[in-house]
Amino acid sequence: MKATIIVKPKKGVSDPQGNAIKKVANNYFGVEFSEIKSGKYFEIEIEHENVKDIIEQLASKILSNEIIEDYEIIYESRDS
Amino acid sequence: MKATIIVKPKKGVSDPQGNAIKKVANNYFGVEFSEIKSGKYFEIEIEHENVKDIIEQLASKILSNEIIEDYEIIYESRDS
Repeated sequence: MKATIIVKPKKGVSDPQGNAIKKVANNYFGVEFSEIKSGKYFEIEIEHENVKDIIEQLASKILSNEIIEDYEIIYESRDS
Repeated sequence: MKATIIVKPKKGVSDPQGNAIKKVANNYFGVEFSEIKSGKYFEIEIEHENVKDIIEQLASKILSNEIIEDYEIIYESRDS
């Protein structure tokens, strides 16, 4: 089973990296970006009978901090 | 215009973070993950006449290192 996990700061939690990149990009291009948000991206591959449970726990316990981050899991369909 | 940019190590380039997480996850769950790859994730919002050109340059010049990383841009369709 393949899955993609995206981890982002929760709404209202500051995103220093995103803000820093926005400042640099605004200066570099001489334009005003409305928003630049940063996060983490993971591609997972595992074969196991409880694969969804393991991937869910990987996302919530290891790849993200449940207090300040949200995560999203996108499972790749079997036939792809 | 909203867009998502995903930055990943090029094929063949080492992924220390992904490897480290894989080791931790294998021990934590007592299973063998086939693969854990890590990358960076950005959500961009900007209104400009040359928006796609700017986002392309943002991805290639600021958000990624073209020598060791690949990037992918996913543009959100206008009506969403």
